[in-house]
Amino acid sequence: MALGKLYGIGVGPGAPDLVTLRAYNLIRSLPVLAVPRPNPYASSLAFRIMSPHIDPEHKQEHLFLEFPMTKDPEILIPAWNKAFAEIETVLKRGEDIGFVTQGDPFLYSTFIYVHDTLKEKYPELSIEVVPGVSSVMAVPIVAGMPLVDGQERLAVIPASYGLESIRRALQDFDAIVLMKVSSVIEGLITLLEEEGLLDAAYYVERATTDEQRIVRDLRELRGNRCIYFSMVVINKKTRSGVLKGHKSAEVSHGHHA
Amino acid sequence: MALGKLYGIGVGPGAPDLVTLRAYNLIRSLPVLAVPRPNPYASSLAFRIMSPHIDPEHKQEHLFLEFPMTKDPEILIPAWNKAFAEIETVLKRGEDIGFVTQGDPFLYSTFIYVHDTLKEKYPELSIEVVPGVSSVMAVPIVAGMPLVDGQERLAVIPASYGLESIRRALQDFDAIVLMKVSSVIEGLITLLEEEGLLDAAYYVERATTDEQRIVRDLRELRGNRCIYFSMVVINKKTRSGVLKGHKSAEVSHGHHA
Repeated sequence: MALGKLYGIGVGPGAPDLVTLRAYNLIRSLPVLAVPRPNPYASSLAFRIMSPHIDPEHKQEHLFLEFPMTKDPEILIPAWNKAFAEIETVLKRGEDIGFVTQGDPFLYSTFIYVHDTLKEKYPELSIEVVPGVSSVMAVPIVAGMPLVDGQERLAVIPASYGLESIRRALQDFDAIVLMKVSSVIEGLITLLEEEGLLDAAYYVERATTDEQRIVRDLRELRGNRCIYFSMVVINKKTRSGVLKGHKSAEVSHGHHA
Repeated sequence: MALGKLYGIGVGPGAPDLVTLRAYNLIRSLPVLAVPRPNPYASSLAFRIMSPHIDPEHKQEHLFLEFPMTKDPEILIPAWNKAFAEIETVLKRGEDIGFVTQGDPFLYSTFIYVHDTLKEKYPELSIEVVPGVSSVMAVPIVAGMPLVDGQERLAVIPASYGLESIRRALQDFDAIVLMKVSSVIEGLITLLEEEGLLDAAYYVERATTDEQRIVRDLRELRGNRCIYFSMVVINKKTRSGVLKGHKSAEVSHGHHA
């Protein structure tokens, strides 16, 4: 029997109405949706986002898959293999399956591992990926802070890379988005103070959801717990816009005259 | 009279069904939509994306605004001031207006200048921004190439920054997205050849639209015209995934033993 088709469906940052029409239509029509969650007792944000869109008239299987939040391969490898096998079972039945994922499927998503593993094992597998609004887009918007204009460079870095990597990026880039900052937040605040950029930074967790939290003065985070899915954005705003760039060019020209 | 509310509405990369439900509902309900275009004779991609969603029963004004594609301030400044003034006229009538913009409103969008200018002039103005799927997300998806996983760093750079800036980013980052590459494409191909990264790069224009074009061998672009809205992505893929990272860690541990 021919394999079913695999969909990777980005459902956006958190608010149910930030799914795309394409994702909405697939959520309502696919026979099986696979939903990642960290463990059987945790709620899945992807599931909360898609829930309001489920068509109660449509018979649909929801397959919850465990993707533990750990880097321990002794735990990860068997859990992932089990999740991949459950998806394969559906595909081998000839049924289409949609893997729903918070944000965008190809930007810091577990779907990348599903994609790469199954594509390697089944080169003939038909895969369709539906892009979604990433929290890289949503976080600046809930903070009311434009991220980068046409003259600016953006770096997106998992904070686990460490402070030296962040320090280098602060030199070369106009805006820096740091993902999953909880483990480095104290050192990061100190680094931003040293670089004179603390007031250019803000912290956001759970953007666009009911539990959204924005902290505009990072000093408040000292000694406080940050959650795993939290981001810090640094916007240097040393240059801003084609027109402002032109104005400063005029000024420096004046100095030379 | 109280000012109307200003919406910045990201309508995604090109395909009409990649708008979010929130954008869709605003496109159908707002009294006025402002649509940027480069000149009165050019078609607006934002308009083509939103057109299928317009509710023909709903009385709605479409305000086309010219944002010339030039960096010449003698042309830009009067054109922008005229566009801003047209938006202000609607707001001062007390009417809400939605500025539709391809991609995401806070990532390389003209809306940033609208936002900053009107917010400075009218601090009390109510502004709501609706995030959209950026071409930074859409381009890797149409190419079938995951962009970055949880262990990787991403740089997004307007190619106008020049080749030295790109060369530095190639050292520090795992994936590099270059925006608007047409002006530097020949030098970029040479640079990627020097760095041994030509086969890690691909070119995409008009992602998710009917005119989408993907070039997987950049050598084909030598001597050819690229369009303005074109991107090159470089995916080094020297490391890939938590599990693969673990495997190489084991190997290097073995070497020391």
